[in-house]
Amino acid sequence: MTHAEAQNVAVAESATSGRRLVQVILAGGSGTRLWPVSREQYPKQLIDVVGDQSLLQATMKRMDGFTKAWDVAAEPVIVCGAEHFHATSGQAADCGVKPCVVVEPARRDTAPALTLAALAACADGDDPILVAMPADHAIADVPALHRSIELAALHAQEGEIATLGVPPTSADTGFGYIRLGAQLQDGAHRIDRFVEKPAAELAAQYVASGGYWWNSGMFVVRASVWLAALKVFQPDMHAACMQAYADARRDNGHIAPGADAFERCPSDSIDYAVMEQLGKPASPFTAVVVPLEAGWSDLGSWDAVWQAMDKDEFGNVANGRVLMEGATSTYARSQGGRLVACVGTSDLVVVETDDAVLVADRSHVQDIKGLVSRIRQTKAPEADNHRKVRRPWGFYDSIDHGERFQVKRIVVSPGGRLSLQMHHHRAEHWIVVCGTALVTRGDEQFLLSENQSTYIPIGVQHRLENPGHVPLQIIEVQSGAYLGEDDIVRFDDKYGRCN
Amino acid sequence: MTHAEAQNVAVAESATSGRRLVQVILAGGSGTRLWPVSREQYPKQLIDVVGDQSLLQATMKRMDGFTKAWDVAAEPVIVCGAEHFHATSGQAADCGVKPCVVVEPARRDTAPALTLAALAACADGDDPILVAMPADHAIADVPALHRSIELAALHAQEGEIATLGVPPTSADTGFGYIRLGAQLQDGAHRIDRFVEKPAAELAAQYVASGGYWWNSGMFVVRASVWLAALKVFQPDMHAACMQAYADARRDNGHIAPGADAFERCPSDSIDYAVMEQLGKPASPFTAVVVPLEAGWSDLGSWDAVWQAMDKDEFGNVANGRVLMEGATSTYARSQGGRLVACVGTSDLVVVETDDAVLVADRSHVQDIKGLVSRIRQTKAPEADNHRKVRRPWGFYDSIDHGERFQVKRIVVSPGGRLSLQMHHHRAEHWIVVCGTALVTRGDEQFLLSENQSTYIPIGVQHRLENPGHVPLQIIEVQSGAYLGEDDIVRFDDKYGRCN
Repeated sequence: MTHAEAQNVAVAESATSGRRLVQVILAGGSGTRLWPVSREQYPKQLIDVVGDQSLLQATMKRMDGFTKAWDVAAEPVIVCGAEHFHATSGQAADCGVKPCVVVEPARRDTAPALTLAALAACADGDDPILVAMPADHAIADVPALHRSIELAALHAQEGEIATLGVPPTSADTGFGYIRLGAQLQDGAHRIDRFVEKPAAELAAQYVASGGYWWNSGMFVVRASVWLAALKVFQPDMHAACMQAYADARRDNGHIAPGADAFERCPSDSIDYAVMEQLGKPASPFTAVVVPLEAGWSDLGSWDAVWQAMDKDEFGNVANGRVLMEGATSTYARSQGGRLVACVGTSDLVVVETDDAVLVADRSHVQDIKGLVSRIRQTKAPEADNHRKVRRPWGFYDSIDHGERFQVKRIVVSPGGRLSLQMHHHRAEHWIVVCGTALVTRGDEQFLLSENQSTYIPIGVQHRLENPGHVPLQIIEVQSGAYLGEDDIVRFDDKYGRCN
Repeated sequence: MTHAEAQNVAVAESATSGRRLVQVILAGGSGTRLWPVSREQYPKQLIDVVGDQSLLQATMKRMDGFTKAWDVAAEPVIVCGAEHFHATSGQAADCGVKPCVVVEPARRDTAPALTLAALAACADGDDPILVAMPADHAIADVPALHRSIELAALHAQEGEIATLGVPPTSADTGFGYIRLGAQLQDGAHRIDRFVEKPAAELAAQYVASGGYWWNSGMFVVRASVWLAALKVFQPDMHAACMQAYADARRDNGHIAPGADAFERCPSDSIDYAVMEQLGKPASPFTAVVVPLEAGWSDLGSWDAVWQAMDKDEFGNVANGRVLMEGATSTYARSQGGRLVACVGTSDLVVVETDDAVLVADRSHVQDIKGLVSRIRQTKAPEADNHRKVRRPWGFYDSIDHGERFQVKRIVVSPGGRLSLQMHHHRAEHWIVVCGTALVTRGDEQFLLSENQSTYIPIGVQHRLENPGHVPLQIIEVQSGAYLGEDDIVRFDDKYGRCN
């Protein structure tokens, strides 16, 4: 009997014991290691780092085509921060997914996030197996991922907690490692322990020994088992999450757990809060690591992005308007649309955005996190904010500014509606360049179409809406002595931003 | 008697033989080797490459403080191309210099340029000594330059043609070399011959031999001597220049030689057209090379710029909004105002502008010229044009564009006046954000001040002027199906652009 046949028999035998899978997407990251493309305001998972869809979107599609022998829920559970809720649900809608979104009131790492997801997945009285994965990783070989998940799910059916481990292909110092325990018949291993990102020498020893796998951050566990394990090992975390979930508000397919309780929740990762405890003698739970050989990358640095992408004959990756002249092993990305030219460079990362340019030696990409901290200390906006600012109704981009003026391009999605607002210090000129605007100005309300304009004097209540079916684009010229975003008095807001 | 004393005696002895010096600035360059900062439309000499004034402005100030023993004309003669005339005279005005500007109808290299300058310098019947220098070089030690020029001028007084040669400090392959002939008493040498930019090995031999100096491209010669030498060695060039000068139009302190005659003029450099001929047995002229040890740089590449600038303890040069994190020997320039971060880079050049980013290994900067040719072949505007476009009345900057719209910031200098014009395919919205505009629209004429706006429908004649004393800034939003610069019908233009 082959390995695959053995697996099929096992699947058939356990068919009665709950074959429902719910994908849980952990989208709480705010990675700065891919700065300047990824920033706190709009982080990595929301961006098309390696393909033509965002990492989150690729992740949402990752269970598509999973074997029919299992019942994969159509709705994934996505856990994300409040500041990314609109972008997350917008991206889901754009690719036809209707997820259950759990909006974390605060950042508490992955263990509380998985706990909230488990509670949401059980809300209809079911007890599914959770397939938890970060929103910001890349997988080249999805069928191979599916095979690993299926194997892990078989363990989860038996009440075990499974993680996916990646047999290492290099002595990478950017990952945590899992020290393998006893090997099982199906190729999985018991878990001996989790190891933090090692130094280079130690990483080399790990890889040479054959006894360590990379920690992928993906887990497969039945919801009730996770909750029970958390209660045993992290009772405070369990209690805080239960309370936060009990206090949750539900609205439009998203769940907002109670902030007071959740803020009291300890912060910890799945690995350290639970997985590491499982091997202890008194533990009533069993952990297992299942091998994942699917071209996995955590895209945890620009070097990892370069590694994960197709290269030309000289090892270069060119993304956008890029010219290479005698370059080798160079990753260059033009995100803001400017022409980027690399001449005679080697082992280099070049990333251009609307407001920043990063040039980094490939061997120094781990220093980018520190760089972003330095930028943050100078209070420069480029640390955390993009020039293009996403809002529930669309986005704006600050295209020019001077001493007493500022120019923005404002794009309002069909049906989008800015708050009814007023400014104390600036007047605004609006020129419609695409689509149709419904403008409220004082007591008037009127439509503007392409090539029409209006003027909003200082102190006059106004509102901009897109009543049409195509995106509305306007150029807004602000004129005044003070042009800060905080000069805004909101009277009414569709998205609840008046409070 | 010291060397300086000997010189003083010589000066005194020749006091009666014409001690008038006229600085000639050769500003016809269009260098692409400092792309993306220097482009054909607005080249290197017009840009503040190493200091807070442009290289041209630094050159115009370079005779300031010259010893009173000589009579330096207050007005330099500047020779430039027609496309750079407005910028050149504008920069002169900005630093209080009123030059005589000779506008070349075509590019014919430095020998014809110096010839036109010689004719202009003799226009009042004088026969001064010309001190000719390129507009785009840097000199660290101006007093040392003055000493070299004075020594050269003494030779010029005797009817010789002097060039300044730089005793080499490295085996640079970016310069031409001068092979030294017999040494004279005052430290100058006869010239054996001029040598094109050598390969690395040959350059090393030259430097090791001690018999070669770098060719700085600076010359000191009496006007009549230059003209006589040219007539002997390049009679066609001489005739063409004489005719072009005879056909010249004079206007507002600038001279526009006749295009027909000048276009027939052969193209050649001072070195090859004349200097190389002087050593020939039958030559009635004598050439001499005077040493220049003044921290001279031709700024002929980004590497040369890096060499010429003050560096931090790690060899880095940061110009503008630049952050270095573990970088060494890195030159980084933020010209467009974006944050440029260099992480762990070494021996690298990073140059950011509004519309392009160059990243080049320092040892490959000579390949930039080829890169620009490649960009030009793709018809991308970034090869030759800046996003910010200078006009006689000021400039405009294209700050945003979309499918049927374009947004420009237009800055009009005090007294500046755009042409009376009309567009077939676009309407324009103008919002004044600084200063005062005098607007002509159809039959109307009216003033707009800050925070006021107007609308120019398709097909309506219009004109924008700045009647005030501060720069006028407007935001122009163009709306229409075709937005090319060539959709313009000019009816009247202060700057003669209707023809």
